Amino acid sequence: MSTPPAPANLMDALVSLCKRRGFIFPSSDIYGGLNGFFDYGPLGVEMKNNIKAAWWRDFVQRRDDMVGLDSSIIHHPTTWKASGHVDNFTDPLVDCKVSKQRYRADQLFFAAVCVEPEGAVPGRGEKQITGYVSALENDRTAEELQEKAETLKRKRAVRGKLLPLQVRDFTQATPEEIPLIPSPALGGINGLDRVDQLMPPRSFNMMFQTYVGALRDDSAVAYLRPETAQGIFINFKNVLDTGRVKVPFGIAQVGKAFRNEINPRNFTFRSREFEQMEIEYFIAPDADWQKCHRDWIDAGLTWLDSVGVPRAMLSEYAHPKEKLSHYSKGTVDIMFKFPFGVQELWGFAARGDFDLTQHQQFSGKSMEYFDEAAKKKYVPHVVEPSVGVDRILLAALCAGYAEDEAPDEKGKLEKRVVLRLSPRLAPVKVAVLPLVKNKPELVAVAEQLHAKLQRKVVVFYDQSGAIGRRYRRQDEIGTPWCVTIDFDTLANGTFTLRERDSMKQTRMTEAELFQMLQERLD
Amino acid sequence: MSTPPAPANLMDALVSLCKRRGFIFPSSDIYGGLNGFFDYGPLGVEMKNNIKAAWWRDFVQRRDDMVGLDSSIIHHPTTWKASGHVDNFTDPLVDCKVSKQRYRADQLFFAAVCVEPEGAVPGRGEKQITGYVSALENDRTAEELQEKAETLKRKRAVRGKLLPLQVRDFTQATPEEIPLIPSPALGGINGLDRVDQLMPPRSFNMMFQTYVGALRDDSAVAYLRPETAQGIFINFKNVLDTGRVKVPFGIAQVGKAFRNEINPRNFTFRSREFEQMEIEYFIAPDADWQKCHRDWIDAGLTWLDSVGVPRAMLSEYAHPKEKLSHYSKGTVDIMFKFPFGVQELWGFAARGDFDLTQHQQFSGKSMEYFDEAAKKKYVPHVVEPSVGVDRILLAALCAGYAEDEAPDEKGKLEKRVVLRLSPRLAPVKVAVLPLVKNKPELVAVAEQLHAKLQRKVVVFYDQSGAIGRRYRRQDEIGTPWCVTIDFDTLANGTFTLRERDSMKQTRMTEAELFQMLQERLD
Repeated sequence: MSTPPAPANLMDALVSLCKRRGFIFPSSDIYGGLNGFFDYGPLGVEMKNNIKAAWWRDFVQRRDDMVGLDSSIIHHPTTWKASGHVDNFTDPLVDCKVSKQRYRADQLFFAAVCVEPEGAVPGRGEKQITGYVSALENDRTAEELQEKAETLKRKRAVRGKLLPLQVRDFTQATPEEIPLIPSPALGGINGLDRVDQLMPPRSFNMMFQTYVGALRDDSAVAYLRPETAQGIFINFKNVLDTGRVKVPFGIAQVGKAFRNEINPRNFTFRSREFEQMEIEYFIAPDADWQKCHRDWIDAGLTWLDSVGVPRAMLSEYAHPKEKLSHYSKGTVDIMFKFPFGVQELWGFAARGDFDLTQHQQFSGKSMEYFDEAAKKKYVPHVVEPSVGVDRILLAALCAGYAEDEAPDEKGKLEKRVVLRLSPRLAPVKVAVLPLVKNKPELVAVAEQLHAKLQRKVVVFYDQSGAIGRRYRRQDEIGTPWCVTIDFDTLANGTFTLRERDSMKQTRMTEAELFQMLQERLD
Repeated sequence: MSTPPAPANLMDALVSLCKRRGFIFPSSDIYGGLNGFFDYGPLGVEMKNNIKAAWWRDFVQRRDDMVGLDSSIIHHPTTWKASGHVDNFTDPLVDCKVSKQRYRADQLFFAAVCVEPEGAVPGRGEKQITGYVSALENDRTAEELQEKAETLKRKRAVRGKLLPLQVRDFTQATPEEIPLIPSPALGGINGLDRVDQLMPPRSFNMMFQTYVGALRDDSAVAYLRPETAQGIFINFKNVLDTGRVKVPFGIAQVGKAFRNEINPRNFTFRSREFEQMEIEYFIAPDADWQKCHRDWIDAGLTWLDSVGVPRAMLSEYAHPKEKLSHYSKGTVDIMFKFPFGVQELWGFAARGDFDLTQHQQFSGKSMEYFDEAAKKKYVPHVVEPSVGVDRILLAALCAGYAEDEAPDEKGKLEKRVVLRLSPRLAPVKVAVLPLVKNKPELVAVAEQLHAKLQRKVVVFYDQSGAIGRRYRRQDEIGTPWCVTIDFDTLANGTFTLRERDSMKQTRMTEAELFQMLQERLD
């Protein structure tokens, strides 16, 4: 199938579909929502469970070198000292003193507005600063700053040529500039007056903090995990001691993580509560980590393709060496072409032995592994594939959403919205539709088939409305197959199977249907 | 199979098995643990996932009247004002001023020690208070108090007959008694001196609190949900609006919940972080709620039996009317005979329209449902079956743990530990064991079968050690079936299937094995 172009307002269309059909609701909707939190509705939870189950089956249960884990969300707080999160898991935060708005400094952009005075000798680089403009990161930050610069020049009636803006983010503002830079909340335009609207950036720790026990002092502080990975490292020894594993092997974990984002955005893409699927794959220090790293990236690409996130929408981004932490050997992200930009979907970090060594030091417990084949002890190194369930779900929705045309009852082409989800991820696998609802024999056969299918898969029974409308309802939620029970079914036991994407109809028997489902949903 | 008696120290044996074989570890073990938190290891996570999947399939996917939901753990804080949790979700807390220990007042028991003086006229009820004793709730609180009373009488050389103790919990202590009652941490014996060790009970809210966003003031306070139920109520309207449901229907949710217990105990039974499986089943106000309530209790009993928590270990406890909240119509708990006592496993509360009405009031959004059949509008009433994943897992382990005898290689009977888990819950379904590991033809056939099985179920391959020992390793983790590949397999393609509980061995073909697995694991 060629994919028809997605509509320009794809995100709006998706958010609306998600709420209307019960995929994703804003959390605490009746109380006005809670920024950065989302609830998954009846269809969303099925799809989310399907993603987790498919990932777990493929990466844990179907491999000989993997085991699973499910650690608590609240760990002993020393975990986060050892991992570096207490000290370093911060975002630069800027307060606007006037509006009380808060921004991430690296998402707040500004520029000095410079003019080449009239009569200046060209090429001499003469320039005059006339003020500052600011804007938040968005699709057209650069244009917005340019427009504000032009407005400023016009307002202040400065003569001369506006020079190209040198845009920086707020972390790069000098102490002298900070009092001059206007807050985006207050228009984002200022001359050379000291307006003192924005505070200097400060580090804001993104871990949610709480207290365990009845005390509320430093001894009782605990954090909601900002990643599932550390739960794996602190259980490394316990897993080793169960005696089932030999390096190289991996430990996988699926579970909620929490980050107190200053600026949650792009629907579920950057939220404050989300679900991760992480693997720590332990290898010998002298193993070929590049090969292991590459193998995992390839496994990720293949798996995404298999669940309906097509290769054509994916790319790779290797983090530049100078931006890596000192212990990191390399990080590559699989990027997905979201409607709001190409963004990280799945990270693959080669982290050396940093984490295990840190926990060894902070706990005083040895993290060494005795390699019987090599007859030596070592702290293993690690490759970490880390992906978000919510992001895969969002990517699958974005990749699957299409608008095309389908014939109505009278053969007239009508617009149709269709979610081309892979059968493994689709929340409903089969819809059972009796052609008419006023023929008891037909309905009885349909109900019987529905009951049989329901033992095996998520199935939806729908007998109301014209058959075309019923197909359309299923298309919109991504149901791959519709089974229509008609008068021929009564005669010969076959029914019509209508395929979502091609809209092709074929006749088949019950046995053939179950066989096909087993193959396609495996 | 008749179940042999469980050992006296069943909990110790279980906790040790759980850690050794990778079912359950204390959370943050390398940092000395964190009281009330647990991590599930490679086998534990499979078993936990199996419980959740079986429950979801049976109570959501296989029913026409149920849909699922997955709401966030952090809700808008008004949710918990409306639900009453901010005001009422408290435990009575007692501080010991000397030892700094904290107790739940209703788990701290005390008694005045009274003596009938020598020479008193019998039946006149003359008595003399000689002091106070205290003890914490445990298996032998009454005996402990009695012993302490006798010690006190002896120490103070009081003559006369010790009268039967009137044991009360600390919430019933009068202001005059509180300064006289000794702290259990300090021995729990006191005469009539004012020792002033324990503080009067105070209300302690069990919700974990955090702050969302960069502010740390009242406007930013949020809570980790103490139950998944409210996430269902606040989404009631959103789910209605997806148009798939008609009263009576239910919404189910599985997810983490958090309670800052003063006194976590009994392994995973009462922990601070746990996972719930809750249903809100909505019915018309004039529907027969007793029948609906009873149906759900019966469904719970049947389901538990089907996953290896046998009816013989279950009982029902109806909460006395005078202890119910004003809005509650009735609550019945399914109780399980844990080694540490008969305790709540699954609660079934008939909550009327309390929750929806509260949220209607606090949100200003109508929670009314228009009943098309009855042609009227109403706020539905609700029956709430609520059970913990961790508790079902613990109950299944307790019910399944047994020690019996099995023959070793030479036919000599040896002690065997076996976990009689139901096949659906067992973390590993099949172990594949080549009879010997030094026959490449045998090993090749075994590996081939292992690979085929691994596509479908969790399977374990083990070729090291005597076959009897390998069986025993699987028995201990509850693997229902072992497949042994022997020389006959090479000849005729059949292998030995050894059943865990009966230890019976039968020969079967690959096709027969897959057929049996499909039937037994469905």
